Amino acid sequence: MKTFSDTFAVQTAGKGTYEITDQVARVVRAARVENGLVTVFIQHTSASLIIYENADRSARVDLHAFFERLVPENSPWFTHIFEGEDDMPSHLRMVLTRTSESVPIIAGKMTLGTWQGIFVFEHRRAGHRRMISVSVLGE
Amino acid sequence: MKTFSDTFAVQTAGKGTYEITDQVARVVRAARVENGLVTVFIQHTSASLIIYENADRSARVDLHAFFERLVPENSPWFTHIFEGEDDMPSHLRMVLTRTSESVPIIAGKMTLGTWQGIFVFEHRRAGHRRMISVSVLGE
Amino acid sequence: MKTFSDTFAVQTAGKGTYEITDQVARVVRAARVENGLVTVFIQHTSASLIIYENADRSARVDLHAFFERLVPENSPWFTHIFEGEDDMPSHLRMVLTRTSESVPIIAGKMTLGTWQGIFVFEHRRAGHRRMISVSVLGE
Repeated sequence: MKTFSDTFAVQTAGKGTYEITDQVARVVRAARVENGLVTVFIQHTSASLIIYENADRSARVDLHAFFERLVPENSPWFTHIFEGEDDMPSHLRMVLTRTSESVPIIAGKMTLGTWQGIFVFEHRRAGHRRMISVSVLGE
Repeated sequence: MKTFSDTFAVQTAGKGTYEITDQVARVVRAARVENGLVTVFIQHTSASLIIYENADRSARVDLHAFFERLVPENSPWFTHIFEGEDDMPSHLRMVLTRTSESVPIIAGKMTLGTWQGIFVFEHRRAGHRRMISVSVLGE
Repeated sequence: MKTFSDTFAVQTAGKGTYEITDQVARVVRAARVENGLVTVFIQHTSASLIIYENADRSARVDLHAFFERLVPENSPWFTHIFEGEDDMPSHLRMVLTRTSESVPIIAGKMTLGTWQGIFVFEHRRAGHRRMISVSVLGE
């Protein structure tokens, strides 16, 4: 049994989803673990992680539109507004998705399904440099 | 310290929740781990996992109704529609719930609370065979 | 490699968020793990866990208000009502947030970002004693 950790940065260009499956797979390969678990963690409260369908781009277009509707920017009852109109919605969209994702590793590979990819979900309008930490445990 | 992995399939009969606590507990017992962690992962983007109240069936009836209302099938602004009216909502309902669930193991057992069960949440109308991967780590 | 587990209770005073970052950090220190993973789990279906911004109190005020709007208490179509008006909403708010949170440990510390804290999100009106189990794995 061993543990392996790494961190990497993802530069976003504002609101949207950014696939990081390859970067995570690279950490898993570097860990040389046949069976175990990888956990990916985003160190921010205005961006989140999701595992989402990575084949058809339209599924992501609708995802982005859905969150604009579910958590609108201009809610008049927001009190946390001093960092901009897109700040408070970003915290709520983050809390409705995920801060970490864990994937079992079997036979040296993440057990992702055929259409599953790991994505950073950026909730701010401006681009940000998002830090990701990764932990691999196994043998 | 050791790691133990397994996969199993769950046949669903369309939209709804399907308890898998017993199947996961069986993997934990097979792993013979006294203290550690079990992570359950669903390899799909139109079904998800939840830990939910497993005592009173009405709590699940209301859960299903809530998600029909929160993410309606016939949203006119969906663009990802070629796989059926229930496809895009299934991705959104999945992303609002969870792809993996992790439970600490203490004294050989998952530390689930009295009313907690682990469920597959099927979001498609048709029944599907859903693949679950499980990782147990501990000693 | 080793594993370390602990449980602790959090007394809530009704609806709201209660930071437990210090309690979790104490368990991580007790585990004496340099690199690994900590998983925090809440053993309840009417309270949840979130990792949320812990600097400005107003972000939490808006979080609470958002969930009162997203999952209102008096939905006339609820059938699971015998435990009070706040019971069914508490299950739905729980399922939209998280039952567990996992954080990689690097150099002996959780890799939380500057503004991230771990919180119990109490969804019932009355105060409750909430049980938290924690698993630390690493070396």
